[in-house]
Amino acid sequence: MSTTPSPVAPEDVRRVACIGAGVIGGGWVAHFLARGYDVTAWDPADDAEEKLRRLVDAAWPALEQIGLADGASKDRLTVAPTLAEAVADADFVQESAPEKLDLKRSLLAELTAATRPGVVVASSTSGYPMTDMHSEAADNGRLVVGHPFNPPYLIPLVEVVGGDKTDRAAVEWASRFYDIAGKSVITMDRELPGFIANRLQEALWREALHMVANGEATVKDIDDSITEGPGLRWAFMGPMLTFALAGGEGGMAHMLDHFGPSLKSPWTRLEAPELDRALRDAVVEGCDEAADGRTYADLVAERDQGVIDVLRATGRLGKDAT
Amino acid sequence: MSTTPSPVAPEDVRRVACIGAGVIGGGWVAHFLARGYDVTAWDPADDAEEKLRRLVDAAWPALEQIGLADGASKDRLTVAPTLAEAVADADFVQESAPEKLDLKRSLLAELTAATRPGVVVASSTSGYPMTDMHSEAADNGRLVVGHPFNPPYLIPLVEVVGGDKTDRAAVEWASRFYDIAGKSVITMDRELPGFIANRLQEALWREALHMVANGEATVKDIDDSITEGPGLRWAFMGPMLTFALAGGEGGMAHMLDHFGPSLKSPWTRLEAPELDRALRDAVVEGCDEAADGRTYADLVAERDQGVIDVLRATGRLGKDAT
Repeated sequence: MSTTPSPVAPEDVRRVACIGAGVIGGGWVAHFLARGYDVTAWDPADDAEEKLRRLVDAAWPALEQIGLADGASKDRLTVAPTLAEAVADADFVQESAPEKLDLKRSLLAELTAATRPGVVVASSTSGYPMTDMHSEAADNGRLVVGHPFNPPYLIPLVEVVGGDKTDRAAVEWASRFYDIAGKSVITMDRELPGFIANRLQEALWREALHMVANGEATVKDIDDSITEGPGLRWAFMGPMLTFALAGGEGGMAHMLDHFGPSLKSPWTRLEAPELDRALRDAVVEGCDEAADGRTYADLVAERDQGVIDVLRATGRLGKDAT
Repeated sequence: MSTTPSPVAPEDVRRVACIGAGVIGGGWVAHFLARGYDVTAWDPADDAEEKLRRLVDAAWPALEQIGLADGASKDRLTVAPTLAEAVADADFVQESAPEKLDLKRSLLAELTAATRPGVVVASSTSGYPMTDMHSEAADNGRLVVGHPFNPPYLIPLVEVVGGDKTDRAAVEWASRFYDIAGKSVITMDRELPGFIANRLQEALWREALHMVANGEATVKDIDDSITEGPGLRWAFMGPMLTFALAGGEGGMAHMLDHFGPSLKSPWTRLEAPELDRALRDAVVEGCDEAADGRTYADLVAERDQGVIDVLRATGRLGKDAT
C-alpha cells in the first residue's frame, strides 16, 4: 500500500526531520536551518546533540556569508529523544545513518511507520540502490534516495532516484522540495550504482590510485594536476561542454569525429565504449542543448571569464610575472 | 651528441619561439607575450598570422585582468616567414603542431637543427611520449614534453617530462623556465600515456560516455553533476585531499581502512587496484604531506571558504531562499 503523494506540498514544508546527525546528517541540519525550516534531529549516539550543535555552530558563519533565509535560526533546531518523536510532525525526513544495508533497511521501515501517511522519506546513501533498501515492513512508495555531497550545506548537488517500489510521485515531490530548499537537483530515471557524480569521481579516483600504486605519480602530482588544470574549469563548466570547446568552432561533433580514435589510446585503464553513431549523436545533441544558442565565441568568453574569476576567488592571481 | 644545458639560463630567457599557431600554439603566444617575452611565431597555414593576431587580441583583455608583466605588449610578436627564421635567435621553443606522430618527429628534428646548440625545445603534445618522438636526426637530449591545458594563457598547469634520450638537465631547465614564466609545473619522472591530468580526465570522460551510451545519464546530468558537486571543490582542493577530508578527523587512513572494501563496488567500469599496505601507506603519507601541518579543522575551514568563494565568483550565491 502506498500513501504517496505527501500530505504537504513541497512549497508548504515547514518541519524537516534529520535522522542520523554525523557529518552528513549534521550538514543537512545546518542546510535546512539556514533555509528557514524547523528541524528536528535524532541520533542514537550519547554525545550526538553536543556534536551536532558544534557542527551547526561551525557551519553558521559560512551560511551567513551565503545568506540566510528569512527567519532562519539555529534556535529552530530540536534534538528529539526518540526517533518517533523526531519524525511525528515532520513534513519531510532525511535519513543519514551509517552505510550499512541492514541498518538502513530497518530504519527506513521504522521511519515510514512513524511518520504521517504519505510523508516522503529520503536516504542520503552514497551507494545503495533504493530497491535494495525496500522491505516488506516499509511503505516503500514514498522512499527515495536524496544523495548529497559533503558538506550538504555548501555543495548544491543532490541526486534523486527511486527504487522499483517507489512511486514516481514521491520522486517528483522530493525533487521539487529540494529545489525549493536551495539544492541543485538531478533526478535520475533509473538506479545506477554510485549514481552519477560518484561514478565519475570514482573512475578518476581509481585511475589516481593505480598511478600511485605504480609509482607513476605522487598524491601531490594528482591533486595539483586537477586544481591547476581541469578543476579550474569544472567549477562552472562540466567535462562534456569543456570537451566540446576543445573541438573549436566545430564543437563536439568535430571533437568526436576527429579524436574518436584516440578513445582507444591507453590514456586510462578504463576501457572506452564503442563510439558508434548513436553515441556520437547523443553526445553532440546533448552538447548543443547545453550550449542553448550560445556560440563557440560566447562559450570561450564565458570559460575564460570563469577561469579568471575562479583564479581570483581562490587567491591565485597576482602570481609573479617575469 | 647532446649540447644541453641551454646557452641561456631559465631566468635570462628573452625570446620564445612558438611553432604552430592554432588554438594551443596561439594560446602559448598570448601567454608568453603577457609575461613580457619577445615572441616569434611560425605556422605554415596561409591565414595563420591573421588568425593568430585575432586570437591574441581576443585573449588580451583577459590577460590584462590577470595582470601583464612589465613591458608586455602585443607588439612584441613577430610572425616569421620561415621556421628557421622563427627559431634562429630563440632562447626556448614551444612546438604546438597537429597531433601527428611523423609530423612531430620530423618537426622536432628540424627544430634542434635550426636552433642554437643546447636550446631547449618543448612539445605541446597531449599524448605522445617523447621517446616516440625522438629520431636519428634530432639532438634528442634537449627535447622535452611541455604539455599545457587549454587555454594555455589561463590554465596554469604544464606537465613536463623527457623521453629516454632526453637529458635530465633539459627537463630541469624547462621546469624552471615554465615556473618563471608563470606556469604551475608538474615534473614527471617517467613517461605515462596521457601524462597525469589527461589520464584522470579521460577516465572520467570514458565513464561519462558509457553512461550516455547506456541511457543512464544525459550530457546535462553529467555536466551538472560535476559543476554543482565535486567540481566546486576541485578548483582549489584536489581529489586526494578532498577524499581525505571525507574520512573526518581520521583522514585518509580512516577513509581507506573504512571504505577500502567499497573500492570493489561497481561504482565505475574501471577496475580498482589492489589496496595493499604499500598503496594505502603511500596515499596516507601523500595526504599528510599535502596537509603540511594543517589540521582537519583547518582543512574543513579552507574547503568551506573555498567553495563559498567559488560559488560567489561563478555567480551562484543569492539563490532563492525558502
